[in-house]
Amino acid sequence: MTQTHAFDQLSAELNDLLCVLNVLTWDARTQMPAGGSGSRAQQIATLSAVARQRLIDPAFEHAALQMQDSGSELQQRAAGQALEAIAAMRRVPEALTRELALLKSEAQDAWASAKAASDFSVFAPSLERMVALTRQLADALGHGGQPYDALLNTYEPGMTTAVLLPLFARLRAHHVPLLRAIQARSQPRRDVLTRAYPVEGQRAFSLAAARRFGYDIERGRLDQSAHPFEISFTRQDVRITTRFQEHFLPGALFGTLHETGHALYEQGVSPELARTVLTSDLLGLYAVGGASYGTHESQSRLWENRIGRSRAYWELHYSELVQTFPTQLADVPLDDFHRAINAVQPSLIRVEADELTYDLHIMLRVQLELALINGELSVKELPEAWNARIREDLGLDVPDDAHGVLQDIHWSAGMFGSFPTYTIGNVMASQFYAAAGKALPDLEERLARGEYSPLHGWLTENVYQHARRYTPHELLERTTGGGLDPQPYLDYLTQKYSAVYGLEEHL
Amino acid sequence: MTQTHAFDQLSAELNDLLCVLNVLTWDARTQMPAGGSGSRAQQIATLSAVARQRLIDPAFEHAALQMQDSGSELQQRAAGQALEAIAAMRRVPEALTRELALLKSEAQDAWASAKAASDFSVFAPSLERMVALTRQLADALGHGGQPYDALLNTYEPGMTTAVLLPLFARLRAHHVPLLRAIQARSQPRRDVLTRAYPVEGQRAFSLAAARRFGYDIERGRLDQSAHPFEISFTRQDVRITTRFQEHFLPGALFGTLHETGHALYEQGVSPELARTVLTSDLLGLYAVGGASYGTHESQSRLWENRIGRSRAYWELHYSELVQTFPTQLADVPLDDFHRAINAVQPSLIRVEADELTYDLHIMLRVQLELALINGELSVKELPEAWNARIREDLGLDVPDDAHGVLQDIHWSAGMFGSFPTYTIGNVMASQFYAAAGKALPDLEERLARGEYSPLHGWLTENVYQHARRYTPHELLERTTGGGLDPQPYLDYLTQKYSAVYGLEEHL
Repeated sequence: MTQTHAFDQLSAELNDLLCVLNVLTWDARTQMPAGGSGSRAQQIATLSAVARQRLIDPAFEHAALQMQDSGSELQQRAAGQALEAIAAMRRVPEALTRELALLKSEAQDAWASAKAASDFSVFAPSLERMVALTRQLADALGHGGQPYDALLNTYEPGMTTAVLLPLFARLRAHHVPLLRAIQARSQPRRDVLTRAYPVEGQRAFSLAAARRFGYDIERGRLDQSAHPFEISFTRQDVRITTRFQEHFLPGALFGTLHETGHALYEQGVSPELARTVLTSDLLGLYAVGGASYGTHESQSRLWENRIGRSRAYWELHYSELVQTFPTQLADVPLDDFHRAINAVQPSLIRVEADELTYDLHIMLRVQLELALINGELSVKELPEAWNARIREDLGLDVPDDAHGVLQDIHWSAGMFGSFPTYTIGNVMASQFYAAAGKALPDLEERLARGEYSPLHGWLTENVYQHARRYTPHELLERTTGGGLDPQPYLDYLTQKYSAVYGLEEHL
Repeated sequence: MTQTHAFDQLSAELNDLLCVLNVLTWDARTQMPAGGSGSRAQQIATLSAVARQRLIDPAFEHAALQMQDSGSELQQRAAGQALEAIAAMRRVPEALTRELALLKSEAQDAWASAKAASDFSVFAPSLERMVALTRQLADALGHGGQPYDALLNTYEPGMTTAVLLPLFARLRAHHVPLLRAIQARSQPRRDVLTRAYPVEGQRAFSLAAARRFGYDIERGRLDQSAHPFEISFTRQDVRITTRFQEHFLPGALFGTLHETGHALYEQGVSPELARTVLTSDLLGLYAVGGASYGTHESQSRLWENRIGRSRAYWELHYSELVQTFPTQLADVPLDDFHRAINAVQPSLIRVEADELTYDLHIMLRVQLELALINGELSVKELPEAWNARIREDLGLDVPDDAHGVLQDIHWSAGMFGSFPTYTIGNVMASQFYAAAGKALPDLEERLARGEYSPLHGWLTENVYQHARRYTPHELLERTTGGGLDPQPYLDYLTQKYSAVYGLEEHL
């Protein structure tokens, strides 16, 4: 047996600590009694500080430098990523890190109170400090003149506003006319989605659907939580949660498929990369196998939307759903059900939005947070700016802050720069799907027979197994030959909604 | 605001890490999918090493030394305990710690396989190494000629075989004649305990019983696990588990009350002592508020047996149990039920033993592990020695190793020296109960009215709040004026079984 290199050993231990942080988060969100929140926050703070110390420890840097000279290509990549993270972490003053951590906890409390009271002014002072500190963070991390890029990069390595904003403009130019065309058509019936669906049936159907896609329950579990999420503690333990609502069937149904997509990514990471830098978000102090937030989201969207909302999927599985809920669905033909789960309707709340208006919600947030970080918009002006954009894009009046500017937790958690990754994920999902279709000429027929393993296998081979070895851009290059390209996504949306709404194609 | 002393800060962070280790353990035993066990073991190993490093770090020692000179009485006690733990941890070579950790994992696997196959020879090689390493550990920790004392002390600070063995002799001299007298009487019917009791009813009744005693569910939760346990992550999050078996009512019923006793201790710790050395088992790398294993066990036994199996308890609550299980208990008068749950019957399995024969199971184990550690008994001779003692003490033939020497996990986990604390707990339970009775002259009447808060309050005031501030001996001194004394326990057993079996008292 050869001696383990210090870099591999230290990386493994660092990954262990990040996995433990993830366990603490999972437990806090799914199991912890209310009384435990204060001491849990302290435990997380202490362990984060330990992980941070170990990251910037000269011994780790020294080991990484050695590995850069002597390691395999894989090890050199890991060492390179470690050195980048060490440098970035060192650029951020420890006082700022601590101040941000304290503010996050305080701001999330203020946000929760403000949302409950639907009163933005309760949250505004915390948000003002958060914007100021986040701007400091961006400057500390470093950027080429656009502070937002520094933030964006922590979620989506390599992405810049210079790439993002034209991409968004192109999506907007497509989405808005498509939305107007859809709004001119009659809407599908949606009452079917809000009937009474006992939770146990939802749970059984959702879990069966997750397993059908390839989710390995021997290395995972499905729980209930207020906000659905996926989290992993190495590929051997990848957990998902769902929110079951008796009177809203698609919530748990598609929520589970969404988290399953994330979970397939994490479970598909190569065993060789377990406990390495390549399954560690060293700057975020988070154990994760996905290359970026956007890449991760591409997989949740792909399995949820491309597969889970497709006509072929429901032609195969609708009868099972009817067996699970015979009385509720007795009068609902497959066609009605499929149209209902693909209905487009502008709404106030991002997490309840359909596929098309979802991106408009994202663009609105990105525009506003960019302006906040650049000082072009003050926190005080934010609610009005929000409401104006909602009216302009979606034609809706925001009745109160809870249904407007206060709906998302992200800003209170300091997650400026993360919103774009949702839309980037949509775009990438269609690119990967198209690439899989080229590689597997019978993909559609196999899917129509309920064979998900060819797609799962291709994605594992080309995306999942690599974890964070490649940047998102490299992953796209390797699979599609090019970079981020919205065309496959736009084509998909046009085709889908043309079918669902009976539009003329190529509108 | 005054500056936090380095000792308090470092102690708080160390306690945070121990709490996190407890979270990892709880999750592994109640939630983790099977696939996660390997990576979880690595996470626990890494975090244990971090905690160990922080304990023996010269900075912590320096801070403790400073505190010993300048702190309050409470802080000086904490500093003293920290210095003792630092010295003890440093006496144990890191190589031995690592070797023991690896062996524990390996030996527990071997034990599980051996138990499943009921074949001691599968476990014997691991056990041989475990005995050898444990002996090394005892010598490293240091002792005055009796290596077993060093081990015993890690569970029960201050306890020695010189005190323990005479105590055991006195218990044996009492228990064996009482058992013989009981065996000469007719046995109560016990069929009532093994009828079909749906788990949901058991769960509801058990949780209600726990809360009646004072278990705060806002700072805790009740789960299902193969081996019931209590574990805490500060007093704010104290969790218990139970094993529900449809055809064995007392398992969950008294198992829950047992763990509730442990939980009341942890929830009753003074908030002032949270995140200090006085809620840290620094040598065991375990966050715990109880003064010792024996003191902790005294509280589980007190609430389970002294209260939960008492006539007064069931006179009050039996009707609720009958309401929960009306058909199962329709033909069972209170008197029959009370006799059934207090029946004494020699059996092969410790965890299923009644209150009286339980101590005999413990003494057998202690005698054997003492002989193993001292080299007076070889691992090879162990099964035969076990079986001989079971025949002598309980009059039973051991049919196979699974029902004999392989039944407990303790030796495979390296927990030599922990068995005595179960019986010490029984003894202490009666001492504390007697002391409470002296302090609260109307205690019995209050209990008979279902008022558990006076007892809970007295125990909180005199035991729970102090956490590890006092040694077990000091706690007894403060409450009873003396040391460990088995007389109240012997009186209790005699009185109880005289009533249940209609024996002449003072036999």
